[in-house]
Amino acid sequence: MYVIKVPLGVRSYTISIGNQLLARLGQECKRLYLGQHCAVITDRNVAARYGEVAVESLKACGFEPTLITVPAGETAKSLKMVASCYDQLAEHRLERKSFVVALGGGVVGDLAGFVAATYSRGIDFVQVPTTLLAQVDSSVGGKVGINLKAGKNLVGAFYQPRFVLCDLDTLETLPVREYRAGLAEIIKYGIIHDVELFKRLEQAMPKLLQRDPDTLSSVVARCCQIKAGVVGQDETESGLRAILNFGHTIGHALEAVSGYGKLLHGEAIAIGQVFAARLSAELLGFPARDVERVAAVFEKVGLPTHIKLNPAQREKLFEAMRHDKKVSEGVIRFVLVNKIGQVSFGQAVPLDLVEKVLAAPPVQAASTEQSAGANAAHSVLRAPHSAF
Amino acid sequence: MYVIKVPLGVRSYTISIGNQLLARLGQECKRLYLGQHCAVITDRNVAARYGEVAVESLKACGFEPTLITVPAGETAKSLKMVASCYDQLAEHRLERKSFVVALGGGVVGDLAGFVAATYSRGIDFVQVPTTLLAQVDSSVGGKVGINLKAGKNLVGAFYQPRFVLCDLDTLETLPVREYRAGLAEIIKYGIIHDVELFKRLEQAMPKLLQRDPDTLSSVVARCCQIKAGVVGQDETESGLRAILNFGHTIGHALEAVSGYGKLLHGEAIAIGQVFAARLSAELLGFPARDVERVAAVFEKVGLPTHIKLNPAQREKLFEAMRHDKKVSEGVIRFVLVNKIGQVSFGQAVPLDLVEKVLAAPPVQAASTEQSAGANAAHSVLRAPHSAF
Repeated sequence: MYVIKVPLGVRSYTISIGNQLLARLGQECKRLYLGQHCAVITDRNVAARYGEVAVESLKACGFEPTLITVPAGETAKSLKMVASCYDQLAEHRLERKSFVVALGGGVVGDLAGFVAATYSRGIDFVQVPTTLLAQVDSSVGGKVGINLKAGKNLVGAFYQPRFVLCDLDTLETLPVREYRAGLAEIIKYGIIHDVELFKRLEQAMPKLLQRDPDTLSSVVARCCQIKAGVVGQDETESGLRAILNFGHTIGHALEAVSGYGKLLHGEAIAIGQVFAARLSAELLGFPARDVERVAAVFEKVGLPTHIKLNPAQREKLFEAMRHDKKVSEGVIRFVLVNKIGQVSFGQAVPLDLVEKVLAAPPVQAASTEQSAGANAAHSVLRAPHSAF
Repeated sequence: MYVIKVPLGVRSYTISIGNQLLARLGQECKRLYLGQHCAVITDRNVAARYGEVAVESLKACGFEPTLITVPAGETAKSLKMVASCYDQLAEHRLERKSFVVALGGGVVGDLAGFVAATYSRGIDFVQVPTTLLAQVDSSVGGKVGINLKAGKNLVGAFYQPRFVLCDLDTLETLPVREYRAGLAEIIKYGIIHDVELFKRLEQAMPKLLQRDPDTLSSVVARCCQIKAGVVGQDETESGLRAILNFGHTIGHALEAVSGYGKLLHGEAIAIGQVFAARLSAELLGFPARDVERVAAVFEKVGLPTHIKLNPAQREKLFEAMRHDKKVSEGVIRFVLVNKIGQVSFGQAVPLDLVEKVLAAPPVQAASTEQSAGANAAHSVLRAPHSAF
């Protein structure tokens, strides 16, 4: 088991990554002296598989849990669903010492976290992410929120969990498309902060796609470690944390244009990362060869790297981008990549360049065999160049 | 003009109390380098009187304000109204560097503050309280929130404003019933923390009721100073801050039972404070004579000190109390008064005593002429026994 600390002063917490952790949920809550009444918020699919284990674990440790089930999918991140959760928490007499467990993927974590952040002016909450994407990204760092018609995550808070429990066993039942979408965030960590992780992914992708336990646990742990380091330095995204949005400016806009849920978040940001790499080639001299390497890794996973838009869709995309929270006073800013493992945030990008790259044909991905210098044996957890 | 600091580290801010301050709103926002786009959230009554001054002041300083008007009254503190505000902020392209101005009473401040706390994961906000209650209480300290059917303020956050502007001129047009309700919070500060303030109120109430500018400004400033001191020591109500809830446990329940808005908050907590004083007499030996003095001050203002309930209402009241956030694991806890100027929070009160006092006849209020030792000339701003 890996245990990673997110260093945030009095709000510090740990992420545990390993197998058979779900059954230890109750014990972990007890260790932190959480209140007696609690709600496990989950979606219908996850409830069927893991709801009972979670609830029984809590009961066995003396807690009084209630199970709140929301529909699966991005549409659950709505004010309507928030209102329904509030009512159920009140009905089950949750009060300020009570807590919420988010059991599920990113949607459940974002929704349940927002409910916890605002119910009774904020009650404790615990993240039990059951998808790869949630384990390496959304469950860590305290970003919680819901969508408005006008944009994704337009409403939310920075609200840290008391702890995160990543039970890798829950990934066994994850549909292959969702698993692959999670790998898009993993590749992101390589590009933004860790060239050794990126090289390892170029080599070890077959093992990761097979969900090999050792590869999976060390890679998930490394990603959490990188995210914890970034969040520890910039909790509320006043600067550095923006690097985690690499690929997300176009990614979020694509999700909005395609209708939330049609394109998975991981699929949208795979396209977004390749797009950002191409902008980086134009603006920062990021090598064309490395643009191809980036595209190649996503292709190995089976993720999209390009999207063809008609003029109407393109206009809709621009409209959506203008509502992105990273748009400040009308200027579109991107996270761009200088070299693999190092990015710069807040880069102003001219609109006509965005349009030009959107209209360009897809990148021809490099075959990985040609990407020299990769060393799969090098442990990503001991990357010597890494600041955290 | 009085300027009082709320000491909260990086979230510290000032409360300015004086005349003709509203027209300086834009300058104050500029001084803090707030973003260009902003929304002034207000209610219909306040919009008619002060909306234009606020908007013009902002425009004159280069800001781009939009005016959002909500219905007057407690019913505006709803999720539905929050959703409507979100949509209007998105429509007017407010983003993370934008800000919200809450222009109005406690309802507007709570609603607009909650919207600001959650829009785009939290944007800047400014409190411009225009009622006495909001100036001495709700605009200071960062409690924001809305009501659920299950209870008042069940949803909310601790979210501090960037500054508070109390323009005493806005009190001139305040209806007398609302003005009196605000005095209930002012009396509270005397009871919980400042016997000299209490004595001054016993003496100077006629002047306060006439809205005498000097009396009003020094009393409002003293209340803000007390509140700032308490909040500075305990921002999120893990302990001391609970003393500010003196009279609120029964008060909130009465509001819920009577239907929000029928009984003004100040009226409900006037009854609640006398009720808490009576419980204190039973449990802490608080002198019967002082229970009478407490009742007498509220009566001087013209506030209710007692409510007669039928058995059905009493049951409803108990049900409402059980949903109060100050209820922890089923035990009803009150803030009780040891002596005027000193209270204890978290006092467990047996349910049968609550019932007994609820059924008892009203307190016979003491006439103020008999309350010896009061010294109206003593400045409440220099109360020598005060820690803040």
